[in-house]
Amino acid sequence: MINDYSQRLVVQEVAPRDGLQIEPIWVATADKIALIDQLSLAGFSRIEAGSFVSPKAIPALRDGEQVFHGIARQPGVTYVALIPNLKGAQRALVAKADELNLVLSASQSHNRANMRMTREQSLAGFTEVLELARGTSVSLNGTIATTFGCPFEGAIDERVVMDLVDAYQRLGMQGVTLADTTGMANPRQVYALVRRVLEQLPAEALTLHFHNTRGLGLSNVLAAYEAGARRFDASLGGLGGCPFAPGASGNICTEDLVNLCEEMGIPTGIDLPRLLDLSRTLPALLGHEMPGQVAKAGRNADLHPLPPGLG
Amino acid sequence: MINDYSQRLVVQEVAPRDGLQIEPIWVATADKIALIDQLSLAGFSRIEAGSFVSPKAIPALRDGEQVFHGIARQPGVTYVALIPNLKGAQRALVAKADELNLVLSASQSHNRANMRMTREQSLAGFTEVLELARGTSVSLNGTIATTFGCPFEGAIDERVVMDLVDAYQRLGMQGVTLADTTGMANPRQVYALVRRVLEQLPAEALTLHFHNTRGLGLSNVLAAYEAGARRFDASLGGLGGCPFAPGASGNICTEDLVNLCEEMGIPTGIDLPRLLDLSRTLPALLGHEMPGQVAKAGRNADLHPLPPGLG
Repeated sequence: MINDYSQRLVVQEVAPRDGLQIEPIWVATADKIALIDQLSLAGFSRIEAGSFVSPKAIPALRDGEQVFHGIARQPGVTYVALIPNLKGAQRALVAKADELNLVLSASQSHNRANMRMTREQSLAGFTEVLELARGTSVSLNGTIATTFGCPFEGAIDERVVMDLVDAYQRLGMQGVTLADTTGMANPRQVYALVRRVLEQLPAEALTLHFHNTRGLGLSNVLAAYEAGARRFDASLGGLGGCPFAPGASGNICTEDLVNLCEEMGIPTGIDLPRLLDLSRTLPALLGHEMPGQVAKAGRNADLHPLPPGLG
Repeated sequence: MINDYSQRLVVQEVAPRDGLQIEPIWVATADKIALIDQLSLAGFSRIEAGSFVSPKAIPALRDGEQVFHGIARQPGVTYVALIPNLKGAQRALVAKADELNLVLSASQSHNRANMRMTREQSLAGFTEVLELARGTSVSLNGTIATTFGCPFEGAIDERVVMDLVDAYQRLGMQGVTLADTTGMANPRQVYALVRRVLEQLPAEALTLHFHNTRGLGLSNVLAAYEAGARRFDASLGGLGGCPFAPGASGNICTEDLVNLCEEMGIPTGIDLPRLLDLSRTLPALLGHEMPGQVAKAGRNADLHPLPPGLG
């Protein structure tokens, strides 16, 4: 444990993209816009608002243009779009995304399964995207999926991750995300890797993306925070499952993370009661319960009445 | 983060008592015995196997005598019984429990709600139990419920907890459990309190009992371990809910904790694959899904086949 919890923890909300993309039902464009607009008012500085991927690959997010066109952008909020390739980048620039998020996997086999190309081919494609973005105001973030383990290969050598961080820096990416794509990270591993990466990147350029697949998401956030990381992805309600494990959790839950921060005194700038109200609308919107815990249990401050006869 | 994770973490399995007591369906005595016997073979050194409470108060556990009589006791395993009062202690001694666990709450209002008496009355009752146990081989453990927060009162002053630790020591209890009864603890608070308590108690006399109500159970375990605590309660499958928050989790999940320890290199002595097999029998036994995550997601080592065409 460290002694100083006064440094702000920045939460990037990913429910509108990473959360919704796995949902089997269609969420109307107007509902997506309303969700993002509510998130924009809850204090987030970064929202991953959609993706520009083939509508055949991710039909749930095929309305990326309409969503980016329809949202009420708030000053100080960066609206991020996930893009897989040059075509997606062109669409995202037209749609005025503030930041493009590109993804490859540290694991060669996961990259082939997910992207149908090698890591080297992914990096070559990113070069074209960076050339397209040069001279515009858009910033670029490179995600390294399966940083902490691969569901096909198992452990990932830290040197592979460090080489990809190097490659992203050489390409000119402004930010790097280390993603625990299927929830295989543990706090000891996270602490060691984040310390190492922060020798090379400033904290404001590094995002950690944890999944709660094996119940360790928030423990990993704390380990990364202790190692100096300050920026974390999280998903409202814990929206977004794990394609490799039906019934298992995916993304860490935003309001559970913000609640943890509040209880520990870590500033986030996010309005937790407002966030809880919003999270509690998700089961009706999506037709199922969410994995998030604080929306069910309430905050510590939500006291219960004494049982009858004792009040 | 600390550097040394070589110290064994002792898990006390509580599913047969704390897990089952909240279940609405009746679990046959033979099934309870079979569960405990399987747990005895999985490497646990401590199992809370039942309670000797009024059958009207906890009908699910009204067969405590038959359970303790029927189990195949393994050498090196301590079988613990929860007891509320002298009458329960007399029953537990007849049933040959190895250890009696007594509970009061740090919060006066929670003690009144839970036990229908004041903390002072609870302590007076414990004196009678300790007198009964004197000269026998049975050991005594005192639990302090709501140590980290009370659902009626909110925050609990650390001095109240320290006074109760003192009172337990003066009574002659061999062990003390600090319980986060409704999942209100956070890692910063846990670290500070455990450090303080371990100035007064040896680590082998201290157990931490965390709930995962707000998703912080395993983070709290790690904070307590870093502060020097070595013994933790956990429940197979995460069995046992939270009476104050329908749908919320209760006890931390044993196999999720053991998985965390394995991934971080912390020895537990527990056979995780065997534990997972056992946990996966619970939904059929109890008629609902369990909150535990690793039983659904598998271990990191359970790799997935590559998608067709990439193998």
